[in-house]
Amino acid sequence: MELLKRKILDEGIVLSNQVLKVDSFLNHQIDPLLMQAIGKTFASLFRESAITKIITIESSGIAPAVMAGLELGVPVIFARKRKSLTLQDDLYTEKVYSFTKKEESEVSISRKLVSPVDRVLLIDDFLANGEAALAMARIVEQADATVAGIGIVIEKAFQNGALKLKEQGYRVESLARVASLENGSVEFAN
Amino acid sequence: MELLKRKILDEGIVLSNQVLKVDSFLNHQIDPLLMQAIGKTFASLFRESAITKIITIESSGIAPAVMAGLELGVPVIFARKRKSLTLQDDLYTEKVYSFTKKEESEVSISRKLVSPVDRVLLIDDFLANGEAALAMARIVEQADATVAGIGIVIEKAFQNGALKLKEQGYRVESLARVASLENGSVEFAN
Repeated sequence: MELLKRKILDEGIVLSNQVLKVDSFLNHQIDPLLMQAIGKTFASLFRESAITKIITIESSGIAPAVMAGLELGVPVIFARKRKSLTLQDDLYTEKVYSFTKKEESEVSISRKLVSPVDRVLLIDDFLANGEAALAMARIVEQADATVAGIGIVIEKAFQNGALKLKEQGYRVESLARVASLENGSVEFAN
Repeated sequence: MELLKRKILDEGIVLSNQVLKVDSFLNHQIDPLLMQAIGKTFASLFRESAITKIITIESSGIAPAVMAGLELGVPVIFARKRKSLTLQDDLYTEKVYSFTKKEESEVSISRKLVSPVDRVLLIDDFLANGEAALAMARIVEQADATVAGIGIVIEKAFQNGALKLKEQGYRVESLARVASLENGSVEFAN
């Protein structure tokens, strides 16, 4: 997706060989027009997949997921990273380890919101080692629903997340694939 | 906003005299079409306010805020509830106490993202005692920017948040004002 790659080149900050900071348009400040374009792109990629529901994880996945949901005409669920007072029982819960934040957290989704008839599109802002996407996929499978695809805004193609997901049979579509962050600059894979 | 009130009556769950659960369309699952309508309504209310930026707090404020940002053509910032590894220095930080979750947290915004020329629309999913909105307003004022208005999806009008905000001179627009949750049912204020 050229618009996204341009934005990454213009505004992304390479913090290390591993960390790309995109706080000006995705992870802290959000560019709504870019999110709309991202939502339309995900929708066109998965239009034929009979998606009934989108699942993402709070917080940075919400904006692209909601825009995709608007285009596909389906509801969006954001998995919560910890339990809150008004969302306590009847949860599907999985552990997810964040290498960026160096901590393990739990993600949860209400059992009421996913059923065996659902064909779920998983959306996330970043794909690195695949931990978050795999946790979402396990939740979908706990519900006996189907993972119909995985949509990623920015893939760190130098990590093995996409490979792990594809080995498990999932279709993965990344809108920008970063091949390298070495020497302080972003190289795309395609 | 009639569409929102209808949704609250149809799908809201009254957990107590104080707590309304709207996890099917706002706080856990999100209805993208409703969020779009909410965004358009906020935009029409604040169209003449020369808004340059929207600020919300993760996570439930993000969807309505992004839709409003799309309509108004301005970026959206979501305040983070705690520090993350890629967002650590140069922050405006304020404490906010959540009576729902019974815990104090910190909300932070990068100093780079708000400047004195900004006219900020604050958006949040719920307004109860006003703690979250006041914390966002203090952050805007730390940045010497202007709070041009406060947009709330659901106001608990039986609590004093809107009064506190209006006493400080802020314009508050709530799309649904809940007057009472007594006897397990939702009564609207207007």
